[in-house]
Amino acid sequence: MTSVFCGIDIGGTKCSVALVDEQGRIVDKILTREHTGRQEAELVALVVSLVHELLQRNNLRESQLPGIGIGFAGHIRYRDGVVITTSNLQGFQGYPLREAFQEHFTVPVILDNDTNAQAWGEYRFGAGRGYDDMVFLTISTGIGAGIIIGGRLYRGTTGTAGEFGHTIVAPGSDLVCTCGNRGCLMAVASGLALPRLFEKKTEAGKKSRLSGLPGFDPGKVDGRILKKGLDMEDPVSREIILDCGYYMGIGLYNIFQALNPPLIVLGGGLIHWGDLYLDKIRSTFYSLAGNMLYDPIKITVSEIIGEAGVTGAAALTMK
Amino acid sequence: MTSVFCGIDIGGTKCSVALVDEQGRIVDKILTREHTGRQEAELVALVVSLVHELLQRNNLRESQLPGIGIGFAGHIRYRDGVVITTSNLQGFQGYPLREAFQEHFTVPVILDNDTNAQAWGEYRFGAGRGYDDMVFLTISTGIGAGIIIGGRLYRGTTGTAGEFGHTIVAPGSDLVCTCGNRGCLMAVASGLALPRLFEKKTEAGKKSRLSGLPGFDPGKVDGRILKKGLDMEDPVSREIILDCGYYMGIGLYNIFQALNPPLIVLGGGLIHWGDLYLDKIRSTFYSLAGNMLYDPIKITVSEIIGEAGVTGAAALTMK
Repeated sequence: MTSVFCGIDIGGTKCSVALVDEQGRIVDKILTREHTGRQEAELVALVVSLVHELLQRNNLRESQLPGIGIGFAGHIRYRDGVVITTSNLQGFQGYPLREAFQEHFTVPVILDNDTNAQAWGEYRFGAGRGYDDMVFLTISTGIGAGIIIGGRLYRGTTGTAGEFGHTIVAPGSDLVCTCGNRGCLMAVASGLALPRLFEKKTEAGKKSRLSGLPGFDPGKVDGRILKKGLDMEDPVSREIILDCGYYMGIGLYNIFQALNPPLIVLGGGLIHWGDLYLDKIRSTFYSLAGNMLYDPIKITVSEIIGEAGVTGAAALTMK
Repeated sequence: MTSVFCGIDIGGTKCSVALVDEQGRIVDKILTREHTGRQEAELVALVVSLVHELLQRNNLRESQLPGIGIGFAGHIRYRDGVVITTSNLQGFQGYPLREAFQEHFTVPVILDNDTNAQAWGEYRFGAGRGYDDMVFLTISTGIGAGIIIGGRLYRGTTGTAGEFGHTIVAPGSDLVCTCGNRGCLMAVASGLALPRLFEKKTEAGKKSRLSGLPGFDPGKVDGRILKKGLDMEDPVSREIILDCGYYMGIGLYNIFQALNPPLIVLGGGLIHWGDLYLDKIRSTFYSLAGNMLYDPIKITVSEIIGEAGVTGAAALTMK
C-alpha cells in the first residue's frame, strides 16, 4: 500500500482538507466555506469531522497517517503551535490551535503558517524540486513568503521569517499597510493597495475605461478587475499593474541581495496579470542586479497553483 | 598542548595574520599595510611569508594547524574560492585566491568574504555566543553582513548572501551607490554617503561648525569628522547621524521581517557615533516593528571590535 498524508489549509474564505500521496497528488479532498464566522473550538470540531469523513470514505484509519499537517492564514508561533494573530478569521488571537487539534488526534499535529505550507508544497512537488534553497512569494491581497534553506523551512525565532511584504521599500509613501506602516511592499504592490492606486491615478486626471462598466466600484478594485481592464486595453489598469510590477521587482532584488537564492517562485492571485506584470518584475530585477548577478537565479511561477497550500500542509508530515 | 588556529584578514588598507586559541584569544599577530599596490601573486607570497614567520616565532609547524582561514574584502564565490570582484584592492577580478594560497600549504585553506569571517568570529566568540541564528551587520565605508542560521554561516548560491547594503530602501533617491543603483541602504546610510549628505545639508542653507576647522574638506567628510562635529555640537553633523540612523533602523526592520532573527549585532566604524546614532536605529526599528514583534530581538554592538575579522577567519578552521 502506498503511503498517504493528510493536509489542512485554513484560509480566510476557504478551508480544504485533503489526502495526498507521496508524489504530492491529491487523492481526495473536501472544500468548505462553512468554517468562517465560527468560534475557534467550533471551527476545530468542523475541520476534525471533515478529516474523519475523508478517512472513512477512503477506508483509512488515522493510525495510517504519519501526522496531520495544517497551514493557517496568520502569524503562528511555530514552537508552541499558537496563532498569534490573524486578519483573515475572527478571533484566534493567542489561540493554541495545534493543541486544540491535537486533542482530537493520536498522530502528531504540525501547525504552520499557510504561506510556509505553500512554500513547502512548491519545494517538494512544484517548481522547487531539485533545489536546496528557494524563496516562495505569494502576491495576493497581501504578500507573504516562505524560505527554504538547506532543504528545510527556515522560520526564524517566532516563525514569522519571510515577511517580505512588510519590508519598507518606499519610506514616506502615502500608501499605508494594514500594519500601520507607510511604504512597505504590501502597501505599494499587493491587492490591498489597488483601490488606493486606482484612486491616485484618477485623482491625477487619468481616465479609466473600467469606470464605464456597470456596477464598477473604484473602492473595490482588485486584481481580477484590473486584469479585465488590461484585456480592455485600459491605460490606468496597465499603469497600476506596471507600478506593482516595479515594486515587486525591487522586492525580488532585495530578496536576492539578502539571501542570494538560486530560485524565487511566485504564486498568488496577482500573477494572473500575466506577462506584462511578470516581465516588469523581471526587467526591474535584472536592471537593479546588473553586474552583481554572478550565478543564475531562476524567477518562475508556482507549478501547483491553487493546491500548494493543502499539498504543502500534507507534506509537512512527510520525512 | 592547546590547539591553535591561523586566520588571515585581507582588507583594503590593513592585512592581519594571527594565531588564535580555541577561546578566540589572539596568541600572536602580525599587521601589515605592505600588501596594497601589489600584484595578486605577490600579495599571496607576502602573506604566506607572514604566516611562516608567525609559526616560526611561536615554535609551531603548519601541520599543527587544522587549516588556514582567510577573510577577504570582496565578493567571493565560496564554492570555488575565487574572488569575483573587490573594490578594496587593485586587480583580483576572477582571481582564484584560495588555490593561490593552497599551493603554499598542505593544510586546507578556507576563503570567505571578510564580513562573513567577522560574523563568524562574533558568533563564536563575541555577542553571538549562545545563539543559533544571528545577523551581523558592519556599517563602515560600505555596509556588509553575515548571516548565521542554525549555527552555520548561510552564504547563498554564490556566497554573497547578506548584502543588505545593496537592498533598495529609497527608490528614486538622488543618492547613488558604487553599484550604480539609487537609494540602496549603502547609498543613503554608509560612509560612502557622507560627503553627499553633508553637501545636501549645506546646499539647503544649513551652517556646519565643521566648515570653520582648518583644512576641512566637505568632499572628504567621514564618520570620524562627523563624530568630532557631534562632540562640537554641530547641528549638521547631528542631523546627518540621525538621518543615517533612521535608514539603518529601516534596514534592521527589513532584516527582522525577512529573517526574524533573535539577534542583530552591529559592527563597523560608524557605530562609534555612539548612543545618539544607536538610539535612532533602535527607535526607528521599534517604531516600525510595533506590535509585530512577538519575541524579543536583541540589537547590540560587536564585542570583538577590531579583531573580529582575523579571529573569525581563524574560527573558519575550527570544528
